[in-house]
Amino acid sequence: MSMTEPVDWTKGAAYIDGSFMPLAEARIPITEWGYRRSDVTYDVAGVYYGFLFRIDDHIRRFRRSMTKLRMEPRESDDELKGVLIDLVRRSGLREAYVAMDCLRSRPQRGMPMLPGHARCYIVAFAMPWVWVFSEEQQRRGVHAMIAKTPRIPAASVDPTVKNFHWGDLTGALFEAEDAGFDTAILLDLEGNVTEGPGYNVFAVIDGKVVSPPEGALEGITRLSVFELCQDLAIRFEVRPIARRELEDADEIFFSTTAGGIMPVSRLGARILGNDRPGPVASTLRETFWRRRQEGWHATPIDYDASP
Amino acid sequence: MSMTEPVDWTKGAAYIDGSFMPLAEARIPITEWGYRRSDVTYDVAGVYYGFLFRIDDHIRRFRRSMTKLRMEPRESDDELKGVLIDLVRRSGLREAYVAMDCLRSRPQRGMPMLPGHARCYIVAFAMPWVWVFSEEQQRRGVHAMIAKTPRIPAASVDPTVKNFHWGDLTGALFEAEDAGFDTAILLDLEGNVTEGPGYNVFAVIDGKVVSPPEGALEGITRLSVFELCQDLAIRFEVRPIARRELEDADEIFFSTTAGGIMPVSRLGARILGNDRPGPVASTLRETFWRRRQEGWHATPIDYDASP
Repeated sequence: MSMTEPVDWTKGAAYIDGSFMPLAEARIPITEWGYRRSDVTYDVAGVYYGFLFRIDDHIRRFRRSMTKLRMEPRESDDELKGVLIDLVRRSGLREAYVAMDCLRSRPQRGMPMLPGHARCYIVAFAMPWVWVFSEEQQRRGVHAMIAKTPRIPAASVDPTVKNFHWGDLTGALFEAEDAGFDTAILLDLEGNVTEGPGYNVFAVIDGKVVSPPEGALEGITRLSVFELCQDLAIRFEVRPIARRELEDADEIFFSTTAGGIMPVSRLGARILGNDRPGPVASTLRETFWRRRQEGWHATPIDYDASP
Repeated sequence: MSMTEPVDWTKGAAYIDGSFMPLAEARIPITEWGYRRSDVTYDVAGVYYGFLFRIDDHIRRFRRSMTKLRMEPRESDDELKGVLIDLVRRSGLREAYVAMDCLRSRPQRGMPMLPGHARCYIVAFAMPWVWVFSEEQQRRGVHAMIAKTPRIPAASVDPTVKNFHWGDLTGALFEAEDAGFDTAILLDLEGNVTEGPGYNVFAVIDGKVVSPPEGALEGITRLSVFELCQDLAIRFEVRPIARRELEDADEIFFSTTAGGIMPVSRLGARILGNDRPGPVASTLRETFWRRRQEGWHATPIDYDASP
């Protein structure tokens, strides 16, 4: 960063282990185990309409993930929340993607080459919002397929610890693009639905919203879907979904921070609901964004506060 | 890097996408998918006695991994080899760990959020040698256990594409440290031996060296073990090893670039060969390092060449 040019925070603001900087300058050493062993956990909160959404839920989940990986960064939950709010405020962004990572560095020379001997620290940033699926894809409904690549089993890598082990998800995305789909849903080794690259999966079966219980992230937006179902008197259930059930479902939709609730209009060769988003998914999606605009679960950002 | 201080390359030299720099300054943006999705492959070659070992084999495997992940960096194999040799020469290190990564950046704003739309580039570095197991651990024999955590299945993440999906391996290392062992060997979901954190596994059964065929990296040092067996008239076989067979083996040893051939003297509660490295592993280990010193499969480094 030159000392003479003004800092441009609008393309994103970052924080690494105690220091703030523009996102474009935020880098990590290539020798960190957080990179070289993907020994890292993360979480992502969203800002829309100038409101930070369910930030305490995200921090609570992030802390649970860090504890499972035996990571103890210097920041308390309150301090972390302050950092995230400060990042959004600095960026000035009313629509932002707010990421928090905790990564392991690496043992100092001479120490045992074991993860317990390396320091862990926080990396966080706010950047301009990115839709997982474009607004056009959401309007027409996402075109999905079922991937041949199975999801990494929970016994090998705990999916409730949000992680960067995306090899299977990346493989599924290549399958999807090769076959002309927007995305691909992964099954577990038993053939049950898990999740897709970056989102939870829901099916509407016999008028009920169904989502798989395990082998998937305990999504915060997924939790919001259940709350909306409750408010709208839509029945919902958490239970395994077999491949065949997904293929026969009345509706399918996805949820994620960087997309909210996203209806699916095609699953492989099958066209759902006349190739348009279904009524349950559409109602949930509209209600979700209206509530967001009204300040549901919101932490307002004081964009005018001085640094 | 200040322009007034002399550059210290002895702590390591790095290369990122066309530029050389001291390792301490080598960093990647926190937004790269190579980090955030572990969408990266790598390889590691070793320098010992001033010789770079089997560099063409490493580059060939690295290229295969990149091709499987649809990565096409700007460097040809010959150019990459030149970069790696230059890194070692700049560092002046006679014992070095030489890593090459190819990582995916991320799609530019407005492009589809799919891996085919992001540029890939090379990161490489030479750093002072690190032993996976200390010389003391190698002398007394490594103390290993069998991990409860199963290895990520090959169907989910192809283990022949060398990758940073270490969540299961890191979990196994925590299991080992908690139980007072140096390391832990991972089984697949069927209960057969795969590999350990950073090394291939061998058992000596009925006078024959046995190593598992799949679910494990096709190690270059493993290949060297087979060549040494051939030269020393030791029978060897590539076939599945069940948990029980490993527990009953006459000897166990590991192989890796950052360690060569490393005998095991304990597996869980069992003490092998009177708590000392066994004869087959010891012979292989001594022969391996003697050949290395003699220039076996070596590319000499011209440390005196001007930059």
